[in-house]
Amino acid sequence: MATLGFIEYKDASPEVRAVYDDIMATRKTDWINNFWKAIAHDPVTLRRTWEDVKQIMGPGALDAVSKEMIYLAVSVSNQCNYCIASHTAAARKAGMSDAMFKELMAVVGMANETNRLVSGYQVEIDDRFKTT
Amino acid sequence: MATLGFIEYKDASPEVRAVYDDIMATRKTDWINNFWKAIAHDPVTLRRTWEDVKQIMGPGALDAVSKEMIYLAVSVSNQCNYCIASHTAAARKAGMSDAMFKELMAVVGMANETNRLVSGYQVEIDDRFKTT
Amino acid sequence: MATLGFIEYKDASPEVRAVYDDIMATRKTDWINNFWKAIAHDPVTLRRTWEDVKQIMGPGALDAVSKEMIYLAVSVSNQCNYCIASHTAAARKAGMSDAMFKELMAVVGMANETNRLVSGYQVEIDDRFKTT
Amino acid sequence: MATLGFIEYKDASPEVRAVYDDIMATRKTDWINNFWKAIAHDPVTLRRTWEDVKQIMGPGALDAVSKEMIYLAVSVSNQCNYCIASHTAAARKAGMSDAMFKELMAVVGMANETNRLVSGYQVEIDDRFKTT
Amino acid sequence: MATLGFIEYKDASPEVRAVYDDIMATRKTDWINNFWKAIAHDPVTLRRTWEDVKQIMGPGALDAVSKEMIYLAVSVSNQCNYCIASHTAAARKAGMSDAMFKELMAVVGMANETNRLVSGYQVEIDDRFKTT
Amino acid sequence: MATLGFIEYKDASPEVRAVYDDIMATRKTDWINNFWKAIAHDPVTLRRTWEDVKQIMGPGALDAVSKEMIYLAVSVSNQCNYCIASHTAAARKAGMSDAMFKELMAVVGMANETNRLVSGYQVEIDDRFKTT
Repeated sequence: MATLGFIEYKDASPEVRAVYDDIMATRKTDWINNFWKAIAHDPVTLRRTWEDVKQIMGPGALDAVSKEMIYLAVSVSNQCNYCIASHTAAARKAGMSDAMFKELMAVVGMANETNRLVSGYQVEIDDRFKTT
Repeated sequence: MATLGFIEYKDASPEVRAVYDDIMATRKTDWINNFWKAIAHDPVTLRRTWEDVKQIMGPGALDAVSKEMIYLAVSVSNQCNYCIASHTAAARKAGMSDAMFKELMAVVGMANETNRLVSGYQVEIDDRFKTT
Repeated sequence: MATLGFIEYKDASPEVRAVYDDIMATRKTDWINNFWKAIAHDPVTLRRTWEDVKQIMGPGALDAVSKEMIYLAVSVSNQCNYCIASHTAAARKAGMSDAMFKELMAVVGMANETNRLVSGYQVEIDDRFKTT
Repeated sequence: MATLGFIEYKDASPEVRAVYDDIMATRKTDWINNFWKAIAHDPVTLRRTWEDVKQIMGPGALDAVSKEMIYLAVSVSNQCNYCIASHTAAARKAGMSDAMFKELMAVVGMANETNRLVSGYQVEIDDRFKTT
Repeated sequence: MATLGFIEYKDASPEVRAVYDDIMATRKTDWINNFWKAIAHDPVTLRRTWEDVKQIMGPGALDAVSKEMIYLAVSVSNQCNYCIASHTAAARKAGMSDAMFKELMAVVGMANETNRLVSGYQVEIDDRFKTT
Repeated sequence: MATLGFIEYKDASPEVRAVYDDIMATRKTDWINNFWKAIAHDPVTLRRTWEDVKQIMGPGALDAVSKEMIYLAVSVSNQCNYCIASHTAAARKAGMSDAMFKELMAVVGMANETNRLVSGYQVEIDDRFKTT
């Protein structure tokens, strides 16, 4: 059970319900996952986080599946188990195929490897890579 | 200067040159960036790393710009300055616009935030997210 | 079960018991949590770690609840589940209210977000922030 | 220089200036630090990030200096150099003395040490620490 | 269960079986651990990862137990639970005694502590430590 | 310059000098590197950290070069530039050859890669790896 427990829809205050309703409407789903129910104890954080996620993950220069895969890449790199489970589901819903998932994992693994080779060999930034 | 210094093309052994040549041919460029010149002191690691990168970053289910942006997302999350500089350049070369870069950063920031809200609130994985 | 198992009080050597006794006396409690029982297989590490914790977490320029919240902030950022569970309990015992917990989480989330925006945008340190 | 460069006040659009003005008014200062000038290329992210920071770091259950020290603790744990420099300055402005800084660092160091002892010894969460 | 499930030997394609056979022969064992069975859904990643591991962990300037302990040190620092469990087992098989394990943990803990003291105090690199 | 600046030997209090003297005697060297001079503003942390390092890095079940390489592996994984520079020097002084350094880097890179493949594929711990 989460630190403060979960707030279910039926027990939620009107302000929390309003966020839950918007989450379900935006995501075209009929349930709320644990993350939101856990932070709902802090309605200000609930609303701010949801508004931020809605804005950032919405349509833009990047499509939905790319954004979800980037979210997943970060969560894997940080080794956040909940986030990996939830964003794997979200990425699949947005269109990530098994083939895309496998390539994503390969890239994430490789980046984590070369990030450390770079720091371990103390590689300096090439002048051509510097912004001026 | 990197830990073991850099191996320039003119000073490289034939096996190192062969990798350098393949890097330049594959990337359609005429120079080698510092990362490869730093790890070239270990020709086995140089070859293995390059072969891995070439395979992973090559055409597949994900396009080149998506892969570079994922690489950049991981490097930003890990805060590897060299990798951020080099993969920002690579992602741009592969087609990342400023608008795409900005959205990428927003997603990476958000993912790092919610990863910690999740762990801080000790959120359990929803049954629906579990693989079975 | 931990790698080397747990050493219970009744099975402990005199030197381990001495540390356990000091932990319970200092913390005004009658039990030892798993962390100490796991590292007790290495009595030197047990004693050093406890002496360090006792010194660092004791009264000083920062009060006990602030120190426990900082400890929790780091543990959340590192996503160490055991540490989050144990230091949430310790922070509460030291006086952290639910309202304080919620603000703490908001700050930790925000810091993790902006840490990556900073590195992703490759922001240079302002001269005014440099120590001289 | 940051990836997209900095947007100075005199070159800023009205919407960016509005955020800059609010930052300076809220913080009672007459300059804008590089972080904001770097992300100002994305006015939506600039506004969202500033609104979030203003809300989260404002008065509440925790005082300003505690919040800045927690921000600094996370930045140190993540080893974000810019963030360490800027939040050390901010924490001092909010009242962090040298003595408080030293204790903060000691706690951050200790937490990072025991986080790894816990994971390395594979310590299980005590039943008493579990939320129910 | 892993994201894509596990591929057991009896259900594996010839190319996957070939890797499994090489793992068992190289490691002188008669079973395949979950990691390989999870990534076997991507036979290219399975082969590449195994070939890399075999090359890197094989005999060289460092002996097998040193390599396994370094692998474990990284896994503990990253707090990857699976990796800690599997590489603790591997290190023991390669000759790590309990005394060696305890010292390893002490070093990993200490390094994680001083890494943050260094960044928190913003310590500059000594000229003598710079490569030239 | 470090946050609080450096305390040079000639300006040090007797208690700081005593630690400096012990560092130089133990390490058979005639200078103090910046890390100690930066934290010397907090003599309690200076002494505690030095006593811990001396105890942990001293002779035991692991030899000096192994311990320094493990320290370096963690520092590389955490991407702490100062620590990488100082512990590369320390490891070399303790006997790390270039060949050993190269293998160390290869292992650190590989571990960071597979740590993420494991979490990304959500691999469960094998029963055989569980401690009982």
